[in-house]
Amino acid sequence: MKNESVNANRRSASPELRTNGPGPVDRRGFLTRGVQAAGALAAGGVVSTAGAQTRTGESIGVQFPSWMTTEGASMRAYGQPSKFEEPVKRLVGQLYGKVAEGAGASFTPLQSLRGTITPNGLHYERHHNGVPDIDPARHKLLIHGLVRKSLAFDVAALTRYPMVSRTCFIECAANSVRNTLPKAQNVACGAIHGLVSCSEWTGVPLAVLLNEAGVDADARWLLAEGADSASMSRSIPLTKALDDALIALYQNGERLRPEQGYPLRLLLPGWEGNTNVKWLHRIKLTDGPTHTRDETSRYTDLMRDGKARQFTFEMGVKSVITQPSGGMTMQGAGLYELSGLAWSGAGRVARVDVSADGGATWRHAMLQAPVLPKSLTRFHLPWNWNGAPAMLQSRATDEKGNVQESRSSWNALYSPANRLHNTMIQTWAVNADGSVKNVYA
Amino acid sequence: MKNESVNANRRSASPELRTNGPGPVDRRGFLTRGVQAAGALAAGGVVSTAGAQTRTGESIGVQFPSWMTTEGASMRAYGQPSKFEEPVKRLVGQLYGKVAEGAGASFTPLQSLRGTITPNGLHYERHHNGVPDIDPARHKLLIHGLVRKSLAFDVAALTRYPMVSRTCFIECAANSVRNTLPKAQNVACGAIHGLVSCSEWTGVPLAVLLNEAGVDADARWLLAEGADSASMSRSIPLTKALDDALIALYQNGERLRPEQGYPLRLLLPGWEGNTNVKWLHRIKLTDGPTHTRDETSRYTDLMRDGKARQFTFEMGVKSVITQPSGGMTMQGAGLYELSGLAWSGAGRVARVDVSADGGATWRHAMLQAPVLPKSLTRFHLPWNWNGAPAMLQSRATDEKGNVQESRSSWNALYSPANRLHNTMIQTWAVNADGSVKNVYA
Repeated sequence: MKNESVNANRRSASPELRTNGPGPVDRRGFLTRGVQAAGALAAGGVVSTAGAQTRTGESIGVQFPSWMTTEGASMRAYGQPSKFEEPVKRLVGQLYGKVAEGAGASFTPLQSLRGTITPNGLHYERHHNGVPDIDPARHKLLIHGLVRKSLAFDVAALTRYPMVSRTCFIECAANSVRNTLPKAQNVACGAIHGLVSCSEWTGVPLAVLLNEAGVDADARWLLAEGADSASMSRSIPLTKALDDALIALYQNGERLRPEQGYPLRLLLPGWEGNTNVKWLHRIKLTDGPTHTRDETSRYTDLMRDGKARQFTFEMGVKSVITQPSGGMTMQGAGLYELSGLAWSGAGRVARVDVSADGGATWRHAMLQAPVLPKSLTRFHLPWNWNGAPAMLQSRATDEKGNVQESRSSWNALYSPANRLHNTMIQTWAVNADGSVKNVYA
Repeated sequence: MKNESVNANRRSASPELRTNGPGPVDRRGFLTRGVQAAGALAAGGVVSTAGAQTRTGESIGVQFPSWMTTEGASMRAYGQPSKFEEPVKRLVGQLYGKVAEGAGASFTPLQSLRGTITPNGLHYERHHNGVPDIDPARHKLLIHGLVRKSLAFDVAALTRYPMVSRTCFIECAANSVRNTLPKAQNVACGAIHGLVSCSEWTGVPLAVLLNEAGVDADARWLLAEGADSASMSRSIPLTKALDDALIALYQNGERLRPEQGYPLRLLLPGWEGNTNVKWLHRIKLTDGPTHTRDETSRYTDLMRDGKARQFTFEMGVKSVITQPSGGMTMQGAGLYELSGLAWSGAGRVARVDVSADGGATWRHAMLQAPVLPKSLTRFHLPWNWNGAPAMLQSRATDEKGNVQESRSSWNALYSPANRLHNTMIQTWAVNADGSVKNVYA
């Protein structure tokens, strides 16, 4: 078996694809140059192949592995990932250890994923007292308070209502909290930013159910309460409930996973993660906010001037480069495709700029279509790394004109003690040895 | 606990929402009327709720279930469905039993899903000799034949190439084969039509890799071969390979599942399922089709005139109502939302018409946005069932003007022995006792 590595740097001059040009990348131009840079792209992977025999007598330079000569496994009722993908998993973080094993979070491994949908098994989790084991036949959703008639819906009844689907992200208000610590943590992208995930959610518009109950004229807010043992509850303005809120029953086609609120959750596209109340069992119409524990002692934002912001529902515009990212190692100088995710609670991502020099110069990234509102958006940009130290950043702008905060502008706004709504630009340092690390810049 | 059922048929007159109107449904009108028909929609589920005490002292008519009074489960590295969803699974069908356990198919339970994405655990399967257990570190993709230079790519090399995402369906050419049997089978929707699923696939455009190898001027086709022990292989026109074909590595965000071709498969949006060759390890550029076993003795279509069609790659325009469907039972007369899936290998679904009288009259269904090309599209339509026997049908039209075949027109085209490319309209009979059954009409 002949197995020569091809080194395109010897075959052809690498093109210069600076990230500091003025205009958008010309896709056709990229492809053409990417092809010329074959070896740089594929170093270590492309081998010449003269030598051995295929089953059909052709020369392909490989021997038959066992899986080509033995019968494979049968079909299964419910599939699972390959055993070789076992390292791709959520990072589990308990807040109080054995004292309350269900209190904490698990982080989506963003650095291992591509596209925009998060598979259900890897959607981030955040629980205040664990995942309840709810029997859907015994679960009801109560709508009461300032309504004409209190109603309780069982799950079977809800499945008969009109349903709509919304592909949107959910992000914990405390996402990216690690980057508010005094020193940059050298961890993977998902361990910092993995409290955001994206699914196609399907359920009944809350507006339909509120109309069934008949909302009183003086109702302005509602209280949404979960059936977990923490009774996690938040106050929601009625305007959002009547806008795009869903009682979500399905996640990427199948019923919600237990850790996502089975059998049903509130879905408030673009809003703080925990307002999307899981295991939802009660909605009470009120004339004002209820000021629950989860919106007073928690989920308020400490500001630089000493005040606290309450009810900062809409998640800010944000982005992060996922490939390459912290803990990865570059395979030598050459052409790479930078890839990342951008999102905004205000609507569609309009633009993502990428810098390789710590924000001195920027270049537009390409956005993968379709770009959906309040949804994760994948961006790409070719980058010809010359082997010298570099500082990779991405900066998102949404269709409302909101621009992602720099680290310094975010720090100027919030108290050093604040841990919420961290939208600051992420910097990945690419070092001369190829290592990629989280740094503050 | 007071638990009165509300019967809206007594509260308000049910509106007439005939399916035989001429124009499209007015969404606003639908919602208004749906709300008025509260009881008919929610019969059996909506209960009045005066009586008991909540934790906060409010009257909600429920006692606390165990999951509200005990700590819940901790976070998990990789999530699974609720144990209460165990009945939602693929229907496994082996072709030869113990003789070759890996030869057969498993069917997506379409009747239990909503939205358009198929969760990875429930994507349909079809294997000719089982699922190989491939070590991705030992897998290579070879491109050879009529090329300037044969190349073999390992998986790590491929992940460095530019990637794009395409949300599209894959449908087995033999999907809906049960409806070609002489008698209508009384089984669930997924058992008939469940060899179609939809995912967000992400991978490297095949055109990029072909350019790396340098396609000879006289190459017109390619052979794509899998690394399974059946060496499943198909011939593909080069035009498709250069159009929208991907070497797919990711499915709904994570790496492909083993039964979907891990570590990589060919993705040919809109084309016959098995041309999307799984466990792909070899692409050979040729000047014509190879006429493999899988496109001569199999996957050719027997026509009414005694001839056989070969290379009918593009899947036809098709739809099916999933709720209600075979084996379900209606909960009495009243307002329902019909829901189903439509798709076409030629592009976007332009329109779905629904009939409740076996095709005598039709009404436009609403399509869930975004409608993506070569992707499953969810349609909805309200239906006020009067309790009398009915015949539900759906008929899709795509943006190219192709219209789904009736049963009789399909039968006139193909041999009675043909089992492939069955796009005929499905009829669900709704009987006076509420039972829903597959019938031929």
